[in-house]
Amino acid sequence: MAEENNDFLKVNKGIKQPELINRQAVERLRKNKNILTVSDYVTGIKNGNTSILGKAITLIESHLEEHQQIASEIINQCLPMSGNSMRIGITGVPGAGKSTFIESLGYYLLQKGHKLAVLAIDPSSEISGGSILGDKTRMEKISASNSVFIRPSPSGGSLGGVARKTRETIIVCEAAGFDIIFVETVGVGQSETTVHSMVDFFLLLMLAGAGDELQGIKRGIMEMANAIIITKADGENITKANIAKNDYTNALHLFPNSESGVNPKVACTSALKNTGIIDIWNIIIDYFTVTRQNNYHIEQRQKQAKQWMHQTISSFLTDNFYNHNSIKEKIVQYETKVVSGEENPFSAAHKLINEYLNSVHDIKNI
Amino acid sequence: MAEENNDFLKVNKGIKQPELINRQAVERLRKNKNILTVSDYVTGIKNGNTSILGKAITLIESHLEEHQQIASEIINQCLPMSGNSMRIGITGVPGAGKSTFIESLGYYLLQKGHKLAVLAIDPSSEISGGSILGDKTRMEKISASNSVFIRPSPSGGSLGGVARKTRETIIVCEAAGFDIIFVETVGVGQSETTVHSMVDFFLLLMLAGAGDELQGIKRGIMEMANAIIITKADGENITKANIAKNDYTNALHLFPNSESGVNPKVACTSALKNTGIIDIWNIIIDYFTVTRQNNYHIEQRQKQAKQWMHQTISSFLTDNFYNHNSIKEKIVQYETKVVSGEENPFSAAHKLINEYLNSVHDIKNI
Repeated sequence: MAEENNDFLKVNKGIKQPELINRQAVERLRKNKNILTVSDYVTGIKNGNTSILGKAITLIESHLEEHQQIASEIINQCLPMSGNSMRIGITGVPGAGKSTFIESLGYYLLQKGHKLAVLAIDPSSEISGGSILGDKTRMEKISASNSVFIRPSPSGGSLGGVARKTRETIIVCEAAGFDIIFVETVGVGQSETTVHSMVDFFLLLMLAGAGDELQGIKRGIMEMANAIIITKADGENITKANIAKNDYTNALHLFPNSESGVNPKVACTSALKNTGIIDIWNIIIDYFTVTRQNNYHIEQRQKQAKQWMHQTISSFLTDNFYNHNSIKEKIVQYETKVVSGEENPFSAAHKLINEYLNSVHDIKNI
Repeated sequence: MAEENNDFLKVNKGIKQPELINRQAVERLRKNKNILTVSDYVTGIKNGNTSILGKAITLIESHLEEHQQIASEIINQCLPMSGNSMRIGITGVPGAGKSTFIESLGYYLLQKGHKLAVLAIDPSSEISGGSILGDKTRMEKISASNSVFIRPSPSGGSLGGVARKTRETIIVCEAAGFDIIFVETVGVGQSETTVHSMVDFFLLLMLAGAGDELQGIKRGIMEMANAIIITKADGENITKANIAKNDYTNALHLFPNSESGVNPKVACTSALKNTGIIDIWNIIIDYFTVTRQNNYHIEQRQKQAKQWMHQTISSFLTDNFYNHNSIKEKIVQYETKVVSGEENPFSAAHKLINEYLNSVHDIKNI
């Protein structure tokens, strides 16, 4: 019983598919129950089957131990096929026109023969469970294409944090042949930093005319941006957009030269007039060309790999803790004590940790 | 040596101040070196010494094991003196006028004899380390008062997450006699959910005229809000502000009745004209009166206590991992392997976790 809890650790010890004696019978059972094996998933992903890709991402995002085991193995097998996409982060305040921009740029990329995955980090409502970003319907023009995969992932939940498994999702999308990955995020908070740590290129969308009011966020977010795009640059907005373009260009001059060797660019776009998209794509292409030549691209990926390792550690630690049999029972008891005021949350946490470390010890001695 | 790693767990086993034989000599040494004991901290906090309070918060936010041990004990001793403040979350997009609003409301509260702590969760720049919220100078009118304690806390850092230790900071501020705590946060992202999980009342500041553009965030954030304040309601803005007030009031009617028993209110304010502050304070006071009577206040605090327990567990797990002697060395080795591509970050994380769980076992056997 206790042994089970460390099973997930074996996943990386080279044990792939256990050779069962009655393997065929098990397989038949699985098929009847519609349960996919790891190799079903990996084959499906390799073949670009988006339905299987979607199911794999659901496993990756699951907190259940049995799902995590399969997910770990899927990720491990997908890793050698990953890494070749352009990973592009797209952020901006709500109302800046992210969906419309992604739709326009996405449509252009589809026509150029690219395969596009859009991963939207969705700060879902804590109370209603409702989604802020909404569903695929907001990108009707591209969502019907087989070359597009749109996936909103919830960021909510006290144990989850921001975009708990976006890195892993990028890996499986790349293995499925998507050569451009958009990671979309809402707002001007912590999530940008996280997204920045998993993409190659970071794009900030701004509304013309909102410039002055957004002074407050300029430095932190602007420092991360490889391009600032002023949206809705049409009609009466054109003058405002051009002023904003100048303002941002001047502001960016005040920053030290980019480590990447490519200083950030500012551009205007209008979804209404369908302008600016090609310019913006050229900015992105130029960036990748230069940074692939000067090795910044690979250096940044290496830095990100380190961050990924640390975030995986943190996520495994909590998963292992909560999946521990001796903890599962105690958690409920301590929650009751904390709610009744019998125990303060801080010392309850200490006691549970102590309990956990002791039982890790006991398991090894069985 | 190995024993040291579990020392922090002893903190909660009733061991307070070890009775050293040459205690006086140690005390003298400490004083010469300007090192405060736990009881120095607790006494200082109890006496409302803001300099010691500030130092205690620095310890609370520290990642160092020796600091965490002292911090845990300080928090434990402060907990019985905590819980009696009004915990108020204040959020809004950059430019909505949070600082000005806090200054106006804060000034009013000081005159009423309250003691106010302002804890600003600061999404500091990842690259420059620079701060977005700036420093105390932005609240000149109140920052000079002895009854005000302003503390920006960085949210950055890959291991940190959003406002890692704000709950603990609230506890020590309450023990120091602050009866009103503002938790201020920037932006419209994940941080609101976290802040909402640690305050009694959640206040959303909105700019008049930005209403339509902010449709996208309405549901998630608005559901959390106990009051929506439209700022800068003066001069030419008055009409816009009143329209916005109507719009938000109507929008709020579409939501189900609040669990708290008090439906969210909408109000306008102008820092320029110094209007609206008393109305807003009355909204807050009414909310606390009703929710204290109908027990919602205590129920919410109990729910939050549970969340706090879980977040403390998560933070202790990572701290314990990284402070582990056998891990400290290995981390660097694995980072090198990950950067060189010899090991993928995902399996490196697995191996380190395995290493950690094995050494937890070994330590117990020594």
